[in-house]
Amino acid sequence: MTDIEAHSHHSTAFLTDMYELTMLDAAFKDGTAHRQCTFEVFARRLSDGRRYGVLAGTARVLDAICQFRFTEEQLAMADFLSVEARDYLRNYRFSGQVDGYREGEIYFPYSPLMTVRGTFAECVILETVILSILNSDSAVASAASRMVTAAEGRPIMEMGSRRTNERAAVSAARAAYIAGFSSTSNMEAAMRYGIPAAGTAAHSWMLLHVDENGVPDEKAAFQAQVDRLGTDTTLLVDTFDITKGVENALEVAGPELGAVRIDSGDLGIVSRQVRKQLDDAGAVSTKIIVSSDLDEFVIAGLRSDPVDGFGVGTSVVTGSGAPTAGMVYKLVEVEGHPVAKRSRGKITYGGTKSALRAYRASGVAVSELVHPAGADIRRKKSLTYREMVIPLVRDGQILDNLNDLEQTREHLAIARTTLPWEGLALSRDEPAIPTHFVGFPEPAE
Amino acid sequence: MTDIEAHSHHSTAFLTDMYELTMLDAAFKDGTAHRQCTFEVFARRLSDGRRYGVLAGTARVLDAICQFRFTEEQLAMADFLSVEARDYLRNYRFSGQVDGYREGEIYFPYSPLMTVRGTFAECVILETVILSILNSDSAVASAASRMVTAAEGRPIMEMGSRRTNERAAVSAARAAYIAGFSSTSNMEAAMRYGIPAAGTAAHSWMLLHVDENGVPDEKAAFQAQVDRLGTDTTLLVDTFDITKGVENALEVAGPELGAVRIDSGDLGIVSRQVRKQLDDAGAVSTKIIVSSDLDEFVIAGLRSDPVDGFGVGTSVVTGSGAPTAGMVYKLVEVEGHPVAKRSRGKITYGGTKSALRAYRASGVAVSELVHPAGADIRRKKSLTYREMVIPLVRDGQILDNLNDLEQTREHLAIARTTLPWEGLALSRDEPAIPTHFVGFPEPAE
Repeated sequence: MTDIEAHSHHSTAFLTDMYELTMLDAAFKDGTAHRQCTFEVFARRLSDGRRYGVLAGTARVLDAICQFRFTEEQLAMADFLSVEARDYLRNYRFSGQVDGYREGEIYFPYSPLMTVRGTFAECVILETVILSILNSDSAVASAASRMVTAAEGRPIMEMGSRRTNERAAVSAARAAYIAGFSSTSNMEAAMRYGIPAAGTAAHSWMLLHVDENGVPDEKAAFQAQVDRLGTDTTLLVDTFDITKGVENALEVAGPELGAVRIDSGDLGIVSRQVRKQLDDAGAVSTKIIVSSDLDEFVIAGLRSDPVDGFGVGTSVVTGSGAPTAGMVYKLVEVEGHPVAKRSRGKITYGGTKSALRAYRASGVAVSELVHPAGADIRRKKSLTYREMVIPLVRDGQILDNLNDLEQTREHLAIARTTLPWEGLALSRDEPAIPTHFVGFPEPAE
Repeated sequence: MTDIEAHSHHSTAFLTDMYELTMLDAAFKDGTAHRQCTFEVFARRLSDGRRYGVLAGTARVLDAICQFRFTEEQLAMADFLSVEARDYLRNYRFSGQVDGYREGEIYFPYSPLMTVRGTFAECVILETVILSILNSDSAVASAASRMVTAAEGRPIMEMGSRRTNERAAVSAARAAYIAGFSSTSNMEAAMRYGIPAAGTAAHSWMLLHVDENGVPDEKAAFQAQVDRLGTDTTLLVDTFDITKGVENALEVAGPELGAVRIDSGDLGIVSRQVRKQLDDAGAVSTKIIVSSDLDEFVIAGLRSDPVDGFGVGTSVVTGSGAPTAGMVYKLVEVEGHPVAKRSRGKITYGGTKSALRAYRASGVAVSELVHPAGADIRRKKSLTYREMVIPLVRDGQILDNLNDLEQTREHLAIARTTLPWEGLALSRDEPAIPTHFVGFPEPAE
């Protein structure tokens, strides 16, 4: 098992649903494998009545496409396939085209988030890994972005690793950082993506410090932490009694103490009490960091309280009620013909698409215009239009300007400022701007 | 980046929150790093008003502990640590003891699911990876188990890879299989864990088959699939029109067709119509498989409909409303002294614990008895008691009888039969059996 795991951790080729392989096999047999196809990633709706979604994971998708190489172990496992299909997979390299929205882009229903063009065979087998990455990363980024807005500039640390799969935790930290979180607790994410890491001590640190009779000694715990990390550290003050905890913290660290963290209780009331206690003791620059099951609504509720920073775990890594973004990967064009599944209640325009976002002169976005690729649909002089779709991969080669996390983060921060003001509200409603289909030859079915 | 990724994909040591490392460092400085500690994994409540939880991920935790080795790249990144701490990490090997519930065990609030004993330093840094694995895998298994019960013996295929992180998908498939799902779409899970893989064709397969004018040719798609996979395959009949789809399917495959899959519509009504259509055409053994946003409630609602199997995606990999199991990893004992955080509304018994499950003579479980490790609390002759906690690791060595997925699956299937009948209900309520704390020297605070 060790060898297989070693290989499969690098290869992304088996992060794939079996039916993609059986379809590929049947397509070789009936001669359709080499038909030129376009697959499109989009979401029919935004999760949970939200006003906008945040696309995340694009750069990871491009990496995954690069690493989509079948190992011999995988090919041996795929013994239900014909020899021809397995030979094809052995030499598989994606050689097609990928276009899409930038990572960190705000999106709406039916935004053509990623378009993959190539033969049926080379495109169909990328379905699962593309959707896994985009659905999970975008779910986290979309939730995180709302928390960042609710925090109104106060920093949020991502600390949810323990609440999600151990590898998903690393991607979640990345997605939260894109959305504007300031740091992560996750060491792997810090190393792999250069995200600032943060963290000081847990309740176990306080409980470790018992005297020879087993009686807890909070001051000893604080003292050891300050000795090692300096007075600028964050002391966790709610293990036993918060008022006494703050008193002990100040006794040990003095008024230069960096911060106290509160991880329980009614955070509004407690933060005001602690602020007063700190101020009365002259620790006017000591910050108050809160954690404990925060989500965007709780953060918003602390707007007027003396909270200087937030630690968010469960809610951000699980998408705050929407753990997946609901994106799909649909075949929309075959050999130049638009194709679409017929379904009641679902808009189904076939064909390769692109999109413009229209803005008023003030810079506020007014609509998302989805159109056939190549069509010119700029019709109103009073509006400015932004091309949403950029080339990501050409002839199997990733274009190299997409992997800067700081730029991605900045892009989103700016995009958020272009939403109509109601677009940042936390309550459930319609998308912040409507999506219009423009320039399609036929009406929607 | 490639080198770092290569290493870090094997090492689990950085799937860790930074504060575990800063605590370890401070503990070396103040001499507490080598104190003998017990950490305990438990959940204070069951998610979402459920009656029971299913523990999953234990074998993966034991693997992760084995692979908890720091690479030089990681140590270089941890440059905020003292030389002493980094030297310790360089040579880190867990050498302590782990006890816990079996994987596939049903659990209740405060069940001591895993107990990790060793020095503070060696135990504290395992916190995040242990919780990540148990919280995510148990969330999936707990949801999946309810679906298995609702399906009343009809097979369920796991097909949710695209709705969750690409690596989480592999673990989710494993957890769903433990809970009684019959197969997975995920190739990596099939290869790594030996889970039966399944899958035939998607809507894209149907849409690929257009004639030279771009007109869809459903029969050509069915024909190609049957040519390659035989008549025993499953044809997806709802791409255009279900009635016509079934007609086409039978025309191509004949009454020996294995199954049809329906992925849209009101599944109860549609399945009855399709059953009649199949029966009328003599295809009495052709099965009906349904998918499309199923969860345990939808499955239960199809109880009396002619559905032969289910495909479940989003809801199982996201825990059906409860994407994380809420387990925590708490320091409960230091150098033989019980320790506990003081918090209102939380039961906080310190000390190393074990548990018995008490059963009536009929075999029905009546209570979960959490007790101090080593205490004998078997008090009622009318009940039988099962020891819930087994040794998992001794002196850093994994005991080797824990990795058989089929046994784990069987264990859960049997455990489910011991729940009181109301314990299998899907509605929200109290846990199926109460948890009692027995034999503790002090009352709860």
